[in-house]
Amino acid sequence: MEMNCPVPFTDSDRILLGHGSGGRLTHRLIEHIFYPAFRNPLLEQGHDGSVFAVEKGLLAISTDSFVVDPVFFPGGNIGDLAVNGTVNDLACCGARPLYLTAGFIIEEGLPLSDLQKIVNSMKEAADNAGVYIVTGDTKVVERGKCDKIFINTSGIGIVAENINISPKNAREGDVIICSGPIGIHGITVLSTRESLGFETSLTSDTAALNGMITKLYTTVNEIHVLRDPTRGGLSSALNEIAQAAKVDIELNEASILIPDTVRAASEILGLDPLYIANEGVVIVILPEKYADKALEIMHRFDEGKDAAVIGRISSTGNGLVKMKTAYGGHRVISMLNSDQLPRIC
Amino acid sequence: MEMNCPVPFTDSDRILLGHGSGGRLTHRLIEHIFYPAFRNPLLEQGHDGSVFAVEKGLLAISTDSFVVDPVFFPGGNIGDLAVNGTVNDLACCGARPLYLTAGFIIEEGLPLSDLQKIVNSMKEAADNAGVYIVTGDTKVVERGKCDKIFINTSGIGIVAENINISPKNAREGDVIICSGPIGIHGITVLSTRESLGFETSLTSDTAALNGMITKLYTTVNEIHVLRDPTRGGLSSALNEIAQAAKVDIELNEASILIPDTVRAASEILGLDPLYIANEGVVIVILPEKYADKALEIMHRFDEGKDAAVIGRISSTGNGLVKMKTAYGGHRVISMLNSDQLPRIC
Repeated sequence: MEMNCPVPFTDSDRILLGHGSGGRLTHRLIEHIFYPAFRNPLLEQGHDGSVFAVEKGLLAISTDSFVVDPVFFPGGNIGDLAVNGTVNDLACCGARPLYLTAGFIIEEGLPLSDLQKIVNSMKEAADNAGVYIVTGDTKVVERGKCDKIFINTSGIGIVAENINISPKNAREGDVIICSGPIGIHGITVLSTRESLGFETSLTSDTAALNGMITKLYTTVNEIHVLRDPTRGGLSSALNEIAQAAKVDIELNEASILIPDTVRAASEILGLDPLYIANEGVVIVILPEKYADKALEIMHRFDEGKDAAVIGRISSTGNGLVKMKTAYGGHRVISMLNSDQLPRIC
Repeated sequence: MEMNCPVPFTDSDRILLGHGSGGRLTHRLIEHIFYPAFRNPLLEQGHDGSVFAVEKGLLAISTDSFVVDPVFFPGGNIGDLAVNGTVNDLACCGARPLYLTAGFIIEEGLPLSDLQKIVNSMKEAADNAGVYIVTGDTKVVERGKCDKIFINTSGIGIVAENINISPKNAREGDVIICSGPIGIHGITVLSTRESLGFETSLTSDTAALNGMITKLYTTVNEIHVLRDPTRGGLSSALNEIAQAAKVDIELNEASILIPDTVRAASEILGLDPLYIANEGVVIVILPEKYADKALEIMHRFDEGKDAAVIGRISSTGNGLVKMKTAYGGHRVISMLNSDQLPRIC
């Protein structure tokens, strides 16, 4: 009975519950959508998993689920977001990302053409980041039991020798570099939600940062912390680091790049850009004497061309993040305390 | 503002959108539910991932998302199911499972007490299987945008030297061992769904099989294929293997253990037990001369005490699975062709 799911898929074909049954329709999805896009020798082993060789050393493993609403937004979709997100998490562990897994939870009725677009974006993002998607899983739930599609990516990467990057390593005298302007991904996604009734010219900053990050930690002698400030924004990431390392942080508001459109949209929405998710930004914390070298390297990359020192670890302390404002005063920047931004990633 | 989420949680506390924001509420969930349950040195690195040491060799990686409905069922819940599922997938790659990741997608409004129960079951299952949960992620979606909770587990394990297990390895002359009775998990879950209006005394067979499987492949000289017949049941798993290895399979109906309650419930529901999901069953395919040794080992384990030879690889061929029926005839067993059983795992 091939009629449920002709090949090639047409725009009217939609995900059926049977596509998650583990039976014939699941296999058709694998054969006609997943394998053609992701094809690689590891994926084709036919196991419920993938077997690969490693050398003695350190590995990093990371996982992230993506539930962004809407699924498609200017500059990307849930597919490349899911690949870049886990690639960046691995890179921020000091790892060279190698292999990703992909777990799909799909709502009955999703157009197969949407799934195809998402899978194509995942493939392209994986190619750009130099990683393979080596195993996966597909579940389908009834209409109304999820929202179009959720994707989990997990991944592993190799941590090079002599790399010791950890949020606990931040220490007095370190400076904080931010790779670029903040708030762009979150405002892009919010602006796309129909109900908000405004549009901007922004496109998401979603990008794989592993190229730039690898260059950094293989060139600069000493990097203490790497972190991509996604959910919860710059502020939550810095609070996490300050608490993990038991240090206080002082930011300089004038050095933090906030695009005018992000600032304007944030004002309309009553949001603070410091709390808005970024998907193509990395924070680098390192001894001040290496800052110039790090900036010089980052400026060579498109995603780091606006990198700047935005603050410093002011002292050992209690995990306080303070900001010197444009008016010369100070304010405490706490961790995100609300649910202002659900489903940005 | 601690009032949203007092500690210790009480039964009236529920998941809020803010628990997925990456900010303060997310951290409270991590500190008060996830860390206390899963605590281990790798989890506590504070990265968006986990770094660990490996020796030179082969690793297996696997991923699975769980969307079972209902979340709690006799014999288990989505938590232990998610841990056991990935543990078993790794074991069926010939790997000793080591580390799991846990990705939660939670519906706003889920009682925190339910999350606590699920997390406790994951911890217990992880302990039983001898694995650690080393990193995780939590997303929250609005009410009505998922169904209570979905969990992704991904995992890695070490493949011992000289292990070469693959669905492609099945060959003429091999026998097929099934570790126990089939259909139990699927019928248990179906029987729990309120709308079906019947109950059975069954409890899910969800179990970690890695202990028995490791003993098998470290003791028996040659094992060609291992596979846990979950979604799609025994039939779909065997069809996959037959197609991957380009062999024909002949099953002997009289040797396949189907509990009376599974048989009775299947008749009422119009289902074939061969297509019903199992969560504590493994298929072992190996040369006939090693079958007695394998059975002797499996019979020592509770989850293998009813292990029996249920068929053989009859010839190289086109991937056909046939069954000799109790009446002496033959019928072709194809891959699951319908969506008869959504959200069993």
